[in-house]
Amino acid sequence: MSGKINNSQSYVKYIEVPVPVLGNNIADVERLKAPLLKELKGVDNIFVPTGLAVNLPSKLRKWGNRIKVVLFRDSRGWFVVDLLEPDPDKPLFGLAVDLGTTRIVLRLVNLEISTNISSASCHETAFDNPQVKVAPDVLARIHHAGTEKGRSELQDLVIEGLSNNINILCRKQGVEPKQVVLLTVAGNSAMTHLFLGIESSFLIREPYIPAVNAPEPVTASELGIGINPRGMVYMFPNIGSYFGGDLISGILFAGLNKKENPCIMVDVGTNAEVVVGNRDWLIACAGAAGPALEGGVSDMGMTAKPGVIDTVKIDRETGKVDIHTIDEKSPIGICGSGMIDLAAQLFLSGMVDIRGKFVPSVCGSRYIEVGGEGENRGAFCLVKASESGTGKDILLTQIDMNSLTSSKAAMYSILQVIVEKTAGLEFSELAKFYVAGTFGSFIKPVSAISIGMLPDIPLDRFEVLGNSSLEGASRLLMDPNAFDEIEKIRHGITYIELNVNQEFMNIFSGSKFYPHTDISRFPSVISKC
Amino acid sequence: MSGKINNSQSYVKYIEVPVPVLGNNIADVERLKAPLLKELKGVDNIFVPTGLAVNLPSKLRKWGNRIKVVLFRDSRGWFVVDLLEPDPDKPLFGLAVDLGTTRIVLRLVNLEISTNISSASCHETAFDNPQVKVAPDVLARIHHAGTEKGRSELQDLVIEGLSNNINILCRKQGVEPKQVVLLTVAGNSAMTHLFLGIESSFLIREPYIPAVNAPEPVTASELGIGINPRGMVYMFPNIGSYFGGDLISGILFAGLNKKENPCIMVDVGTNAEVVVGNRDWLIACAGAAGPALEGGVSDMGMTAKPGVIDTVKIDRETGKVDIHTIDEKSPIGICGSGMIDLAAQLFLSGMVDIRGKFVPSVCGSRYIEVGGEGENRGAFCLVKASESGTGKDILLTQIDMNSLTSSKAAMYSILQVIVEKTAGLEFSELAKFYVAGTFGSFIKPVSAISIGMLPDIPLDRFEVLGNSSLEGASRLLMDPNAFDEIEKIRHGITYIELNVNQEFMNIFSGSKFYPHTDISRFPSVISKC
Repeated sequence: MSGKINNSQSYVKYIEVPVPVLGNNIADVERLKAPLLKELKGVDNIFVPTGLAVNLPSKLRKWGNRIKVVLFRDSRGWFVVDLLEPDPDKPLFGLAVDLGTTRIVLRLVNLEISTNISSASCHETAFDNPQVKVAPDVLARIHHAGTEKGRSELQDLVIEGLSNNINILCRKQGVEPKQVVLLTVAGNSAMTHLFLGIESSFLIREPYIPAVNAPEPVTASELGIGINPRGMVYMFPNIGSYFGGDLISGILFAGLNKKENPCIMVDVGTNAEVVVGNRDWLIACAGAAGPALEGGVSDMGMTAKPGVIDTVKIDRETGKVDIHTIDEKSPIGICGSGMIDLAAQLFLSGMVDIRGKFVPSVCGSRYIEVGGEGENRGAFCLVKASESGTGKDILLTQIDMNSLTSSKAAMYSILQVIVEKTAGLEFSELAKFYVAGTFGSFIKPVSAISIGMLPDIPLDRFEVLGNSSLEGASRLLMDPNAFDEIEKIRHGITYIELNVNQEFMNIFSGSKFYPHTDISRFPSVISKC
Repeated sequence: MSGKINNSQSYVKYIEVPVPVLGNNIADVERLKAPLLKELKGVDNIFVPTGLAVNLPSKLRKWGNRIKVVLFRDSRGWFVVDLLEPDPDKPLFGLAVDLGTTRIVLRLVNLEISTNISSASCHETAFDNPQVKVAPDVLARIHHAGTEKGRSELQDLVIEGLSNNINILCRKQGVEPKQVVLLTVAGNSAMTHLFLGIESSFLIREPYIPAVNAPEPVTASELGIGINPRGMVYMFPNIGSYFGGDLISGILFAGLNKKENPCIMVDVGTNAEVVVGNRDWLIACAGAAGPALEGGVSDMGMTAKPGVIDTVKIDRETGKVDIHTIDEKSPIGICGSGMIDLAAQLFLSGMVDIRGKFVPSVCGSRYIEVGGEGENRGAFCLVKASESGTGKDILLTQIDMNSLTSSKAAMYSILQVIVEKTAGLEFSELAKFYVAGTFGSFIKPVSAISIGMLPDIPLDRFEVLGNSSLEGASRLLMDPNAFDEIEKIRHGITYIELNVNQEFMNIFSGSKFYPHTDISRFPSVISKC
């Protein structure tokens, strides 16, 4: 666990304090500040909480005027988190936390050695957000948090789950939980509010106002998290109810704020969050894209797990359907990215028309009727009961398809509003198209383009970021300068409210066709049809 | 209790928060900051602890976007202490605390109305420092605080005593203790350390290093003080083990740091603390002056209480002795200032010589022998047993006299070192001679000059400050700008260590004569002899 001590760019400093002599009455706290300020070039004050003075005199003298100082920052600058024995064999750790609505991911980072993310990433753990027990979705949780009791119940659940999992992760790595002194947490605005026990009701009521955009760091003991009680918990800031810290963390990781040419980052999900810009400007928006994109739309829709269909291919000559399932288990359902694949294949093979309606004559025996009115009574049988893991047909109904059509249209409209109407760019001017979020990492851009969900730009411009929220949180643990970047990102973003955007509604109708009413927008798709 | 709300120069602000609207996603905390920063001209950030965001959304909406904000400062600038209902009928209060070794004085100050000190001063209470129970003197308390148990025992005693007395004082004024949101506490370095529960052992060991010079404010709940739990406790900073916050508070009150011409402030006691300077420079020192000056030297020495002799006159023609006692009760002893009076009268009447020795032939029947060697066997009978309240003679022995001689010589030497040798001034150049501290307020300058304890400057330059420690603490409650003054004072003072000052020892010998070996220093005394 020991390694090269990195004193220059780190929250942990090994400090040599000048020995006190007669004729120099400077107190221990103030004598400690001087060498600390030397380390933090350009900083003119460092806050030392009075509680840390309590035992400082005997500590300094016992440790021969050498001391390990844990530092952190808030909106007012640097402060001392804790003063510890200068023992390099008990290094201090930080934890990056991706605070997801469904899943929480932790990564343990050694704060005392220069390390890179990839080597550190093995020290990770993930667990279901224990708030799922109360309600799976954000809205229901916020309603539940409407009473003080409900609020503290939800907070207790997530804090307790976090503490337990920190404990397990630490033990596995031979680290004591009290060696963890910093937590950087990236979550959406609602999860951040619930985590801090802050009233969240007004997040979801017009005009959608968070209680706080940039919460100041709080101590682990204040939140009851089982690490060093003086340890600090930093929450990534949000810029609105629907644009949270997970996205700010993602922007930091993608480095959008440092690019010369405009790039875009999109977190695709039930809510689509989008930010476009470069080192000079950033524009963001968020909008409902519909649950279809996360597999939450129909009986067969589900999130990724063994047996879930993630890839679909349809031979345009023979109409033969090929599927692939996660872990190659018997198929039990389909995930959002599989559904995008399926829709793309159906459209390219002519099995659905430009309105997204099944064409029974092309579908052949796979077209069945399951009830419903008029055009909506049909369904496409992806897997027959005899071949499925559930013993039932795995169907994509016309209703499911309609829902997917709305979702993909919403996604494209959001992109068009922000890129063309707001930033005044052509899609082709985007140097990079970053896809953030867990769900996004499974989408095949070529399929998403085929259905007109994502713009028709060269495939090599798409880049999957993976868990960008966790990566950004890790970055902050390894580089204190990221603070300034986060502040710059936060203050530099112009947020566009789609709820009040008339343009969005106008564009939305045209986007409901496959791939689009304006087919000149999708030359690569047209060439395949 | 209500009155004109003073929003400009106050820690309490009534704030109107802009109503949130669609298209402006600024969160409640950040929306509150904007009007606050407008109030605090020239301030570019204000810290809002995350804990205050917890209920802010419903508070703001319940109170119609109006809110009462309590502000305070630390080394990093302004922060929000609490957010309360904007009810002017429940005004908020501060408490100024003179944290004396022997006595603690509290003054309740309404933070919401423009008030002046004199009208507020009726809302005061005083009580014995409960740490006296463990040990009356500072040294013994510091020894007692050498263990963690002893330290917390001493802290608990003073905190509990304070809480009880705050409660009593508040109830008497019809104020709820939770209406108290700020405490400004001025005490010497040892009392400040013990109050905060900070290790104090090194204060009294060479090289005499405090744990902290300028402790950051702490919350009332952290210290367990029974006011608003979020209320802040500010401790006046010290500049060394022997120059504490009580003196910084005194300098603030006397306005030494704003004077054009050099002035001096002296706190006379067992330890003499001295500061000389003006708006451009300040030099301070502290030295042991001996217990004689606080009446702690002999059987008859005592602190001021009914029956204690505070004034002595001896008729130079008849040798008749006139005394005055506090509350005009039968005499039981003499206080320090009475002793200075007595010594002055004995010297001026020729009853003691220039070496401070009794002259039996002049003393007449009042001279008696009480044992001891040679010159030291004599005593002066101030009150005969038949006339005393104790049934015993009240005696000033030669041993007492010798002790007083040392004390007055130390006092004068300290003044000479700092004024002449360090600041390079003549005593006559001092525009004002401020006498601080409770004991100092009883000293008659004319008597102190007569024995060569204070320099022979015009009497109208002497000014008694009273409880300057309490007055400075009150000043900070009424004027937030005093923060900057305190910091300027603290950083501007040059502290001279007398323990390592050779000049002091050289000067001391000459000062042991009455009034001084160099009689040209005391023209007014010589003219009376």
